[in-house]
Formats: sequence, structure tokens, C-alpha cells
Amino acid sequence: MNNSIFSDRIADVPRSFIREILKVALDHTFISFGGGLPNRALFPVEPIKAAAAKIFETFGNDVLQYADSEGSKVLRELIARRYKTKKGLEVLPERVLITTGSQQGIDLMGKALINEGDDVVIDEPCYLAAIQAFSLYKPRFHPIPMNGEGMDVKRFKNLMSKIKPKLVYTVPNFQNPSGISYSEATRRAMAEIISGTKTMLLEDDPYWEIRFSGKDLPSFMSMIPENTVTLGSFSKIVSPGIRLGWMVAPDALLDKAIIAKQAADLHTSYFVQCMVYQYMVDNDVEKHIRLICDSYGKQCRAMMDAIKEFFPPGVTHSHPEGGMFLWAAMPEGASSRRLLDCAVKEKVLFVPGDPFYIGRKDSNTMRLNFTCSNEQEIRTGIERLGNAMKKLLPSR
Amino acid sequence: MNNSIFSDRIADVPRSFIREILKVALDHTFISFGGGLPNRALFPVEPIKAAAAKIFETFGNDVLQYADSEGSKVLRELIARRYKTKKGLEVLPERVLITTGSQQGIDLMGKALINEGDDVVIDEPCYLAAIQAFSLYKPRFHPIPMNGEGMDVKRFKNLMSKIKPKLVYTVPNFQNPSGISYSEATRRAMAEIISGTKTMLLEDDPYWEIRFSGKDLPSFMSMIPENTVTLGSFSKIVSPGIRLGWMVAPDALLDKAIIAKQAADLHTSYFVQCMVYQYMVDNDVEKHIRLICDSYGKQCRAMMDAIKEFFPPGVTHSHPEGGMFLWAAMPEGASSRRLLDCAVKEKVLFVPGDPFYIGRKDSNTMRLNFTCSNEQEIRTGIERLGNAMKKLLPSR
Repeated sequence: MNNSIFSDRIADVPRSFIREILKVALDHTFISFGGGLPNRALFPVEPIKAAAAKIFETFGNDVLQYADSEGSKVLRELIARRYKTKKGLEVLPERVLITTGSQQGIDLMGKALINEGDDVVIDEPCYLAAIQAFSLYKPRFHPIPMNGEGMDVKRFKNLMSKIKPKLVYTVPNFQNPSGISYSEATRRAMAEIISGTKTMLLEDDPYWEIRFSGKDLPSFMSMIPENTVTLGSFSKIVSPGIRLGWMVAPDALLDKAIIAKQAADLHTSYFVQCMVYQYMVDNDVEKHIRLICDSYGKQCRAMMDAIKEFFPPGVTHSHPEGGMFLWAAMPEGASSRRLLDCAVKEKVLFVPGDPFYIGRKDSNTMRLNFTCSNEQEIRTGIERLGNAMKKLLPSR
Repeated sequence: MNNSIFSDRIADVPRSFIREILKVALDHTFISFGGGLPNRALFPVEPIKAAAAKIFETFGNDVLQYADSEGSKVLRELIARRYKTKKGLEVLPERVLITTGSQQGIDLMGKALINEGDDVVIDEPCYLAAIQAFSLYKPRFHPIPMNGEGMDVKRFKNLMSKIKPKLVYTVPNFQNPSGISYSEATRRAMAEIISGTKTMLLEDDPYWEIRFSGKDLPSFMSMIPENTVTLGSFSKIVSPGIRLGWMVAPDALLDKAIIAKQAADLHTSYFVQCMVYQYMVDNDVEKHIRLICDSYGKQCRAMMDAIKEFFPPGVTHSHPEGGMFLWAAMPEGASSRRLLDCAVKEKVLFVPGDPFYIGRKDSNTMRLNFTCSNEQEIRTGIERLGNAMKKLLPSR
């Protein structure tokens, strides 16, 4: 088949390196920090099983029938109520659209907003699957480097004085891949710059409830609601394999998102929507979330402790207050691609940093997932990775 | 919010008229032929419940975990086996991609193939949600009128001598909206015209197992596999609300579809994939399908009998051998939009034909769904619709 049959938008997009790496990590003598998986030991298996059985009583046979594109009314109301209870935010259920995972929200926003050549501002590094999803709509990306407090505000302000981006994409809490959170100052400064413009900020926020230290910070939705689309997800608080998330957007934009949603998959599995609703109302979900946070917090600390013990000097890293990832940087000029070759020999895996940038083939950085290995495995894996680094890096 | 923030592709696409009509049909004194719903009384509720409970034994906690974008291996193998058993077709499981309903397959093909201005050939009338999904990629549509045997082959041949379309979209079996099936002669003639070109034929085939009369005909996949992408669905044989379908495509194109799939929703609900697999292997599915076919066959015949009795002369209709829809045409020049106004007064609903054409605001045609009303309701509803027609149409 000749490549010329494909659309321009898809011709050059590579398959996800991360999803490919997930597949090789099946050899159990390896320790993998490469995945992006929540800890399967913490899935609420029995309650989900009970919920799946009970929905036929609660909702009848219609759990198997076609349903509204917007999503289940009671589930949208539940999501709105949780914003009120947990963040003090007033969200109208009518402004919530149920999505097939928050990934779909990214794609729908690309579809509804981006014309070829439109300016899109992203963090550097950036969530890989967002780069992929947006790439299909052929925007002009403007990556802005992150510092310890999120996107570099000075550079953002400078950029906004020159261009009028369609979209600014951020993961403000415990970013994938970096684990960095936007500080309150960064949030407020960016909100002020965006307020009153036609730029939409896409606040991709799947991790915010998985905070194990520090305090919750104001969301962009609370500061500039007319310029914000917020994405949420049940992936990290219930389970990712069910594929259930949501979007909160201003009315006119939500209307367009619903059109794109109808074309994309008519609606999200109604069975899954009902099952998760049932699970959420029948269980002490907040207790379950605390359990996840406690566990991930311990795993993260175990990784940071092991890094201190085993990584050579000159390797720096982020200090996540939540989420699932930690970001490490070797000295400028070192190659994390070459490190991966060494690491494979030591039987440890991670994701090299380059796919999280636009157009790079290598970098000195790497993403380390801490949620899928226990504390002992984390220690052993970081020791192995430290050994690989010591072989790669010139000793000083 | 100013409309100018939206992408060109979405600015003018209306919300689905059909999905909106579903919402008004909640008044139970109405009889609705307007929906596109399978009969909920035939959903395999207890077996699905049992399957949902059992998957945790069969697959473990991983039913809740992130999974491959391609879909469950055992489910892809099961789909390939069913093509072999039921159609004698050799399909490699590696060429099957699991999708979030077959609607997603339409969208992924649009994304992977269509550049702005590319030529896309469709039946006239055409499945509405395909028009919507493709519209977002801004093709040039070439609708070819259907006759009783499918797309008009002479017109298709003539068109193909002038343009090289990227895509030909068809629903060859019991089309939505018309209920018309492509004859064997039409299939073979079209396959011959397409064979050896770079045109891809998208064979959207969600209904083929729901045949209640006549005999199964060769699929395009069996005739021109290198030029065919076939979409299948569990919506009509198991249940639509779960959102589970698949695509079979040539290797190079499947690779691109997987990239688009990753960007769209990472993967289809793995819980749902496992549940349907479990249901399919634990139950006599073929018996269940015969039950559906028997019921829909009776409902279709009841509709045709009632049409004969109650519709005024001059109204013609298709004679479906399967599927869920029948297509009726009033004399040229009559307005099905005006008929709908009369019909609402008579408390009966249907979908006027115009949204199934490109760029029409009215037509003399209409889609009638026969699967969601029992035989008595069908008779009463068609009587009401006949009354509405008699008020609208000049008596002769």
C-alpha cells in the first residue's frame, strides 16, 4: 500500500513509544518505572463487582441501551456535587460532558478548536498523548519550559504579547511526565494574562485528588471559568481500564464538544457510566482515595530516598506532592536514550525524556513511575538505574 | 463567546437531529419509529450480569487496568474465528482493531485518510453519523443515489472514470436509513471497479448478522481485501450501550488507525471487552441472534402489512431482509418535514429523510424504525402515520 493514501495529519505521527514499552515489560525479572499505570493492587475489585451486578436493579435493562451523548444525568450531577464538596466550586451539571477517558477530552478539544497552523502553547516537557492528539490537527506548538513552579511565567507573558494562541494546554497538578505542580503564584499570573482574551486554557487534571503532601491549590476553572476547559478522570481514583472521564467547559464550547463526541463514538459506554455511578454512591470513596494517596506517597518517598542513596551526584529530580511520576535530569549533554540501553542490561526500565518534547531525538531527562512497584522493588530498581548511570556518566 | 474561536471543521456541523429526537420521545402516549434503538427486551441481561461477575476470575484485576490500544487479544481472536465459522473468511486477529463502537471506526478512518477537499463517495441516502464524522475532515462528498440493489453502479463507474476518491463509504447490508441491501451483482461490479485503484472502500457492516430473510451475500472484504476496511459491531447482537465494535483493515492502514485510536481514547474499555468476550464464550450466541432475527422479522412484516393497509396510494417503501429500518417515499415534491408536524399531532414520530442527504432541507422520504415497538404498536403507529399522510397529501 502506498503511503500517499493517508491523510497529511496522520502520515508522520509515530506510534506511542510509551505504549510500545509497556508491551516489552512483560519479563518479570525486569523492574519497570516505564509504565504509567495506577497500582492494580488498589483497584476496588469487590465494590466494582457489586456495582456491576446492582445497576440492573437501579437502572434496568437500559444500562445496555444507547444513551445520550452528553452522558448519564446522575453521573454528571455527581461530578458537579463533588466539585462543590471537595473544592467549593459551583459547576452546573449541564456543563459536564462524560468522555471515554480524559484522553478523549483532549482529542475533542483539538477537533473543536484547532485549525491547521493555529498556535498552541504547551508545557515543556508535556504529556505525550496530548502532543499526539493535538498533532493530528496540525497546530504550531509553542513549548514553554517548566521550572519548579510550572510553566515559566515570564516566557509565557512574553509569548502572549506576540501571538494569540487558540489553546494553552497544562497539567497543573503533579504533571505527567514531570510530577511538577503549578504554584499558586504561577496559576494566578497565568490566569491574569489569559483573562479577557479568546485563548482557551485546557486544564488537564486527572491527578488532583491523588495528593499525598502539600495543600490543594486554586484551579484555573475557579479563576477564569470562561477561558477554561477542565478535564477530569475516574482513572486514578477508581480504575483506568474502564475508560471514564469528563470535561467541564463553557456552554458554547461544550455544544461543539458534544457534536465532536457524537461523531467520535456516539456516547461513552453507558454500562460503565452506570457502574461507576453505583460504585461512587455505595462506597466510601474518599476513604479509598486516602488509601491510594497513602500508598503512592510512601512509594514516592521510597523512590526519592533510593535516588539519594544510589544516583550519582549531578542528577537532579522533581519532588512530587502527588500523582504517579517523578522526573530526573542527568547533567546537560547526557543521553537518556543511551542510559536506557544500559538500564535494559541492568533489568530496569524507564521512559527517556525526548518524546515529551517537540521534535527532540534525545535528552538528559527521564520519567520514573513510582506507583507500580513496591518499596523494595523501587529501592532495587533505583539501585540498578544508579548503576547504569554510573557506567554511562563520566565520574567526576 | 465568539464563534471565531472554533475550528473551521466544527463551526457549521449541526447537532444530530436524530439524537435530539430521541430525547423528545419520552412521552409514552407517542409511538416512535424515530429512534435507531435495538429492542431492549432482547438484551441478554442475566448472561451479561454473569459475565461481568466472572471476568475477575478469568482475567484478574487487570480487567480494570490500562490495556493495549489494539484491544484484547482473545477478543480479536474470537472475532477472527467468527468470520471463519460464519462467513468462511480468513481474517488474521492482528488485523482486527477493537473500537469504541463501530462509530469510532468511521471517525478513525476519516482521521487517517481524509485531507480537506479529498473526494469521498457515499450512498444517497447515507448513514447520518457517517456524514457527520466525515464532515469534520472537510471532504468533497459525492452522493450516488441508491436503487433497490444498492449504489447505482452506472453512476459509480462514471464517477470513478473522472475522480480518484480516497474513500467509498457503504452499509451494504440492510442500510441505515434505507433498509436496502446491495445485490450480489452490485457488489461484484463495484469491487471490480475499485480493484487495483488506491481507493479504500469502507464497508460499515453492523447489521449483517441480523438477517431475517434472503441469503448472506459476499462481503467486499472477501472480494477486494486490500481495498476494504470492514467495520463490525456488538451493538446489534449483544447491546449498543456497552459501545463495542471492531475494524478489520489492511496492515499499513491498521497501523495508522491504531495511532489515531491512541490519540482518541488510548483504548476501548477493557472491562467491557472482557465482559463481552466472557459472554460470547459462555453462551449460545447464535441462538440469541436467531431470537433477535425472528423478532425483528415479525416486526418488519407487521410494519409492511400495516403500510399496505393504511398508507395512501403513491407511497412506496423498501423491503428490508434484515436490520432495523424501512425507508418510505411519498410522491415527488411532498414534504416529510411537514409530514412530521402532522404526525406529531397524531402522536407518532419518525425521522424525515433530509438529514440523510448532503445539503437538503427537506425531502419526500422518511426512515421508519421497526425494532422498538411491538406488532400492535406498529400497526397503530402506521395507522396514525397514514392518517397524517392523508391529511398532507392531495387525494387523487
